[in-house]
Amino acid sequence: MISREKHDRMANAIRFLSMDAVEKANSGHPGLPMGAADIATVLFTRYLSFDPKNPAWPNRDRFVLSAGHGSMLLYSLLYLTGYDDITIDEIKNFRQLGSRTAGHPEYGHAAGIETTTGPLGQGIANSVGMAIAERKLREEFGSELMEHYTYVLAGDGCLMEGISQEAIALAGHLKLNKLIVFWDDNNISIDGPISIADSTDQHARFRASKWHTIAVDGHDPEAIAAAIEEAHKSDKPTMIACKTVIGFGAPNKAGTHKVHGSPLGAEEIAATRKALGWEAEAFTVPSDVLDAWRIAGLRSAKARKEWEERLEAAEAEKKAQFVRRFSGELEGSLASAIGAYKQKLAETKPSPATRKASEDALEVINGVLAETIGGSADLTGSNNTKTSQTHSITPDDFSGRYIHYGVREHGMAAAMNGMALHGGLIPYSGGFLIFSDYCRPSIRLAALMGIRVIHVLTHDSIGLGEDGPTHQPVEHMAALRAIPNLLMFRPADATETAECWQLALENRKRPSGLALTRQNLMAVRTEYEEQNLCARGAYDLISASDAQVTIFATGSEVEIAVKACQTLTAKGIATRVVSVPCFELFAEQSEDYQQAIIGTSPVKIAVEAGIRQGWDHFIGNDGIFIGMSSFGASGPYKDLYKHFGITPEVVVASAEAKLS
Amino acid sequence: MISREKHDRMANAIRFLSMDAVEKANSGHPGLPMGAADIATVLFTRYLSFDPKNPAWPNRDRFVLSAGHGSMLLYSLLYLTGYDDITIDEIKNFRQLGSRTAGHPEYGHAAGIETTTGPLGQGIANSVGMAIAERKLREEFGSELMEHYTYVLAGDGCLMEGISQEAIALAGHLKLNKLIVFWDDNNISIDGPISIADSTDQHARFRASKWHTIAVDGHDPEAIAAAIEEAHKSDKPTMIACKTVIGFGAPNKAGTHKVHGSPLGAEEIAATRKALGWEAEAFTVPSDVLDAWRIAGLRSAKARKEWEERLEAAEAEKKAQFVRRFSGELEGSLASAIGAYKQKLAETKPSPATRKASEDALEVINGVLAETIGGSADLTGSNNTKTSQTHSITPDDFSGRYIHYGVREHGMAAAMNGMALHGGLIPYSGGFLIFSDYCRPSIRLAALMGIRVIHVLTHDSIGLGEDGPTHQPVEHMAALRAIPNLLMFRPADATETAECWQLALENRKRPSGLALTRQNLMAVRTEYEEQNLCARGAYDLISASDAQVTIFATGSEVEIAVKACQTLTAKGIATRVVSVPCFELFAEQSEDYQQAIIGTSPVKIAVEAGIRQGWDHFIGNDGIFIGMSSFGASGPYKDLYKHFGITPEVVVASAEAKLS
Repeated sequence: MISREKHDRMANAIRFLSMDAVEKANSGHPGLPMGAADIATVLFTRYLSFDPKNPAWPNRDRFVLSAGHGSMLLYSLLYLTGYDDITIDEIKNFRQLGSRTAGHPEYGHAAGIETTTGPLGQGIANSVGMAIAERKLREEFGSELMEHYTYVLAGDGCLMEGISQEAIALAGHLKLNKLIVFWDDNNISIDGPISIADSTDQHARFRASKWHTIAVDGHDPEAIAAAIEEAHKSDKPTMIACKTVIGFGAPNKAGTHKVHGSPLGAEEIAATRKALGWEAEAFTVPSDVLDAWRIAGLRSAKARKEWEERLEAAEAEKKAQFVRRFSGELEGSLASAIGAYKQKLAETKPSPATRKASEDALEVINGVLAETIGGSADLTGSNNTKTSQTHSITPDDFSGRYIHYGVREHGMAAAMNGMALHGGLIPYSGGFLIFSDYCRPSIRLAALMGIRVIHVLTHDSIGLGEDGPTHQPVEHMAALRAIPNLLMFRPADATETAECWQLALENRKRPSGLALTRQNLMAVRTEYEEQNLCARGAYDLISASDAQVTIFATGSEVEIAVKACQTLTAKGIATRVVSVPCFELFAEQSEDYQQAIIGTSPVKIAVEAGIRQGWDHFIGNDGIFIGMSSFGASGPYKDLYKHFGITPEVVVASAEAKLS
Repeated sequence: MISREKHDRMANAIRFLSMDAVEKANSGHPGLPMGAADIATVLFTRYLSFDPKNPAWPNRDRFVLSAGHGSMLLYSLLYLTGYDDITIDEIKNFRQLGSRTAGHPEYGHAAGIETTTGPLGQGIANSVGMAIAERKLREEFGSELMEHYTYVLAGDGCLMEGISQEAIALAGHLKLNKLIVFWDDNNISIDGPISIADSTDQHARFRASKWHTIAVDGHDPEAIAAAIEEAHKSDKPTMIACKTVIGFGAPNKAGTHKVHGSPLGAEEIAATRKALGWEAEAFTVPSDVLDAWRIAGLRSAKARKEWEERLEAAEAEKKAQFVRRFSGELEGSLASAIGAYKQKLAETKPSPATRKASEDALEVINGVLAETIGGSADLTGSNNTKTSQTHSITPDDFSGRYIHYGVREHGMAAAMNGMALHGGLIPYSGGFLIFSDYCRPSIRLAALMGIRVIHVLTHDSIGLGEDGPTHQPVEHMAALRAIPNLLMFRPADATETAECWQLALENRKRPSGLALTRQNLMAVRTEYEEQNLCARGAYDLISASDAQVTIFATGSEVEIAVKACQTLTAKGIATRVVSVPCFELFAEQSEDYQQAIIGTSPVKIAVEAGIRQGWDHFIGNDGIFIGMSSFGASGPYKDLYKHFGITPEVVVASAEAKLS
């Protein structure tokens, strides 16, 4: 039992470390750590099950700081509870280049940072994915190996972002009762009191989505503790509204937006020291307080050890699966299964839409990998993301492997990030390529964090036809290729689709997107190749020595390139076709390989039913680009391809004109 | 008074036109028009104030089909009520290339389409902007010129998207009581019953955000009418939940997801004809029914005429203002005011951050234009979007010109679209460039619709420093430049900022974004130029004959280019600097001008603290790009610029290396 006095001193340690670090950096957000210190202290000293010396323990409770600007709260906790990664020097180096203590918590910079936060609303939505993963893996491996809570600290900003509604609605629907959100209810936003921009009754809002809600004084440790215990008993996710004072303890600035995002200043810090009776120097935690925190950090070591013993004692196959899946390694048999499937494709030469080809590839993959978990933002039949192995998860039955996310692309993508971060699962989504815009912030964060989530993005061009320009991606390949560390694939036929799926799975440290067609495509890869040709990003699909013309294309336009090549070749014009399923992987090949693929044909043509941006790298400024330079239009897709001049005939005529 | 029988036949006219058009196109969504036909019939025959012969009447009620896939509902209504743009031939040409009846309603294709919808949730969020515009203009011009309702038909998909929460919360907060949303409560989503993905109590959810809600049978005309009348009396926005049967009337498919997005098929259509007692041929509306609809279309002609008389009778200055503002024309005095401001800048040569320069330019603009309406997604002090003229709008006082949107970028951008579509206002936002990702779908729709909204996007690179990679745009300039018809500006100093603002305002048919720095920048334009140099997109900032080196740069990196140029010139290497404030405007210049600007220097260097994508157009494949190829990092910004090698020294060294 921690006395109130000891609690206060422990919470004040967070407050002063945060104040001091922000002051030294001359940049940062002291308000949240000071306001939420009591909540965090109760959680970390009494409830959170974690082991700083084994931070990757799969069954730990997760803590997500959704209000990522309050990063010093998290860094203080990690230092105080004894994580090796966060030393006092790291605290002193807050927000400096190369430190682990970045302005916002960055996943991978230090153990204990469960996800990268800062862009508001992302953390709470990640946490839904973590809670789904826990529930799903509990179903699979039993509560002796998996049963933990996911705790979140969210601010008003998180709750104002639309993504939070998607997350809340999904969590309530799925009855994720081990998800507990602390709302730092401090009445303050950057522009002033919350009342200048919001009149929402958050309790009523959460309850409308089937959450349990509790209101407490966020500075009363026993009330916070009682609320957590009440939450533990709920059969619903719980939101605990903690009424706090932002910048608690600062005599002149507490409770105002001035304390949100700026250093307090030496004078106010001195006044706060006085007000809170804190005599230690900057960056110094009195030894009794640090000891108490370090003891709190040891609280779950025994539970973790017992868990290890249970894992050791588990049935061999189950243990091996669990360990493999948390390691992120794929089943060894996947490659051969995909190889056999490719062989079959080479024999049958089917010509499905690549969205259908993706379903077929997934049928193989989901048969081998138990860890894939699919879903769609209410477009299952269009995205072809459901296979025979993936029956639907329901609120009361998590034995399935498929999530009906609803029309919630952003919540879906963020939940997938949470699942990947949790470990044990490989999430893939279903959506239209155009609506990648709706979840772009989460895709970007997956790329920044370097996590494996796979987005199935169908209806990838004007080829979707009648739905028209609101549904036709034109700039989306370029815009997604622009995101560092994201692999964007646009396969040309069933074989390439299988290869791209394999690459997406094998790239454990990056997210992938697969842009897939609505319309059927002919097989362009007709011979079996053991090698994954797509792995090089671009490769010679049709070679020609001394080619006069090289045509680069992706996805549905490879078929057009092949047909144009046939015509040009018949006319005696030596022509190559290069398929370019992935710009990013191509850019990582050797300079020699890249030069060889780009080649020296006098005429270089790129064909993609999107914008030119990015293609000059292949064709040069004077190359011919055949694609889109405007929004699309509504009409049957064959009419549209003709209307926008993306046809073999136009390719041929352009090549001939340039050669003449 | 319309009898129940007549009502049913009028509603059935919508149903059959929709069924027939979808059947003929062999593509489309019959379910919603059939289900919502009763709601629409009550609204359009009894309440909606509109005049098909004067569709641009500023004081008309607005009707927004947020569930845009149900486009045939709208097209049927426009045909039946007598809009010239939608003939029966257009209905027959549904979803064909070149028709006005695109797959989803496209603003500008036909009068009566108030906004482009299809991407779910956008329409309901646009409508919040329309209702804000109405309320604001009523305050300004009096209810004799402006007082109307905004009606919305939204589906479950709209309400699942996060943007809807932002819209609902904002509308409830601002007490937009003339906003009335019909929720087409049909229990069906594409993947199946709503219950597979959602358990939200929508009434409770709306009420939590201070809406009035009503539940009715969506097939009972009198109940619908009573609900509308109740809504008219409310002091809050109202959500009317209309329980409907999707595909109402189709004996075998109604009430299932099968009727959502596919043609019914000839057999089911025949069965529906029988079930609803409809004997007319396909695309034929019995004359009594058409007459009744056309009479409904004349209902508000008198009100419109009286409104015209009131406008005529208004005080001359007020009338002129009203007419000018709805025409979209700027005040004639704007250009000279900006000219005078530029002259002052040339004299004082200030070196503010461009976000501050933007505030200074806005101070001039807001002094001249009464129609600008600013705001920020809770970053007012950081975005510098508030000027002396723009005090804040509050729920009870719309005399202000500034909206605290809360942390709701998506809702903000969509509401701005609604304001621009409504007419009479020029909305501008405030946000961080990085969070353009959060509102990208709305920015795209603004570009597709060709409407003037202006996004102030500050903290535009690693130059924001300590907040780190979650907040540092790297790929965002490229990703936004990728959107057709969007003008992305990145001004280099105060003078360019003023010029870019002027261009954003003058481009009435496109949205603009201004990427602005957090950090101070030196004045690079030191001489007064009457001409708006930024209008050409790129221009010679520093000329040199027979330049050996040309440095292209934007925004904060122009200063770096200028410094590098000074060093190179001092070393005897003739060097030009080209400032490139806007790629899109440059691409629209004559081929000659573009060639002249790109020039023939043997060394071409581009400097932008973002990714290379798009720059090859200026520098060629073998040009030198100095910028980012990864995410950023947390640290003081000067450290970051050095770390990532974006400095005058690196530019100079690269140029020399290439020349040697």
